Amino acid sequence: MNYRYILASGSPRRKELLGSLGFEFEIIPATGEEIIESTVPSEVVCSLSEQKAKEIFHKLLRDNTDTLVVIGSDTVVSYSEKILGKPKDRSDAEEMIRSIQGDLHQVYTGVTVIYGNNESSKSFTFHECTDVEVYQMDDDEINAYLDTDEPYDKAGAYGIQGIFGKYVKGITGDYNNVVGLPVSRLYQEMKKNHLI
Amino acid sequence: MNYRYILASGSPRRKELLGSLGFEFEIIPATGEEIIESTVPSEVVCSLSEQKAKEIFHKLLRDNTDTLVVIGSDTVVSYSEKILGKPKDRSDAEEMIRSIQGDLHQVYTGVTVIYGNNESSKSFTFHECTDVEVYQMDDDEINAYLDTDEPYDKAGAYGIQGIFGKYVKGITGDYNNVVGLPVSRLYQEMKKNHLI
Repeated sequence: MNYRYILASGSPRRKELLGSLGFEFEIIPATGEEIIESTVPSEVVCSLSEQKAKEIFHKLLRDNTDTLVVIGSDTVVSYSEKILGKPKDRSDAEEMIRSIQGDLHQVYTGVTVIYGNNESSKSFTFHECTDVEVYQMDDDEINAYLDTDEPYDKAGAYGIQGIFGKYVKGITGDYNNVVGLPVSRLYQEMKKNHLI
Repeated sequence: MNYRYILASGSPRRKELLGSLGFEFEIIPATGEEIIESTVPSEVVCSLSEQKAKEIFHKLLRDNTDTLVVIGSDTVVSYSEKILGKPKDRSDAEEMIRSIQGDLHQVYTGVTVIYGNNESSKSFTFHECTDVEVYQMDDDEINAYLDTDEPYDKAGAYGIQGIFGKYVKGITGDYNNVVGLPVSRLYQEMKKNHLI
């Protein structure tokens, strides 16, 4: 079976992680409005990953006879029952970093894979949760971090794989899930569904 | 105080991780014989990191008036009371991968920092331990992995940050400790000792 793989996300981190699975894929980021109807992190990321995958799958289906495999993904940070998405500005990012430093928080990533063609399609959705513990940070450290470009395009206003790594004491769960795509779980699920 | 920082390891992964702390450093790999007098993983990595740091510190001290800060580090994988170092050959690597797949193992990294000059010196040593859980792998997956270059220069015959990442279900502890240098703990310890 010949598959045409598509990642429905423009994140360079997800591109790199998906690349580690060894197959060729295209990148077509979803651009639709994100509709959030829940405050439960696992439900939010599953619903958003589904919206993204569906948008691209239906867009490509029209003029296509290939068997498509579209992968959508969404990540949020959750701290004391509050969902932290991407920061709007510096003060928003500062509030996020001040809340997570010196404490434990959760990172949720949802993944939806829709596969099929004009005649029939199937899909599955899963999420992974990783606990992340951050060392205490002083004002100088927080300000120096906010002066970098790193926080502003990332859920929770930090990148574990970047400069912020030196403040991460440890995690429980999948590291790549915090980066933005739980590739090991995705690999297992794709294998189970004969997509790889 | 002006410090001359030296990493006593030739590992490109340690170089990249230490680089994330933001200071300039030189790389002078220790080359001395490694003397192992223990079978306890935490003792082994602490002792070896100390041997490496000491070798380079004393080598540089002779013709130097700077204040040196030498960082030595050593990593081993531990599976059911057995220490796995770097594999000698393919069959050694295969044995390691077959033992860790489908199960939980531990990765220990020891770090020693020696700092000072001709007049006086101080040092500290610590270690971090991270639990790593690996998905089950079939023969095809094991052979395909052994066909790559990745296993052969790494303790336990795998690199969590590379191709092997897709088989890692999750970890408990510091991810960078598995890569080869627990930079967040190192940053905290250097800060405490006014070395950063």
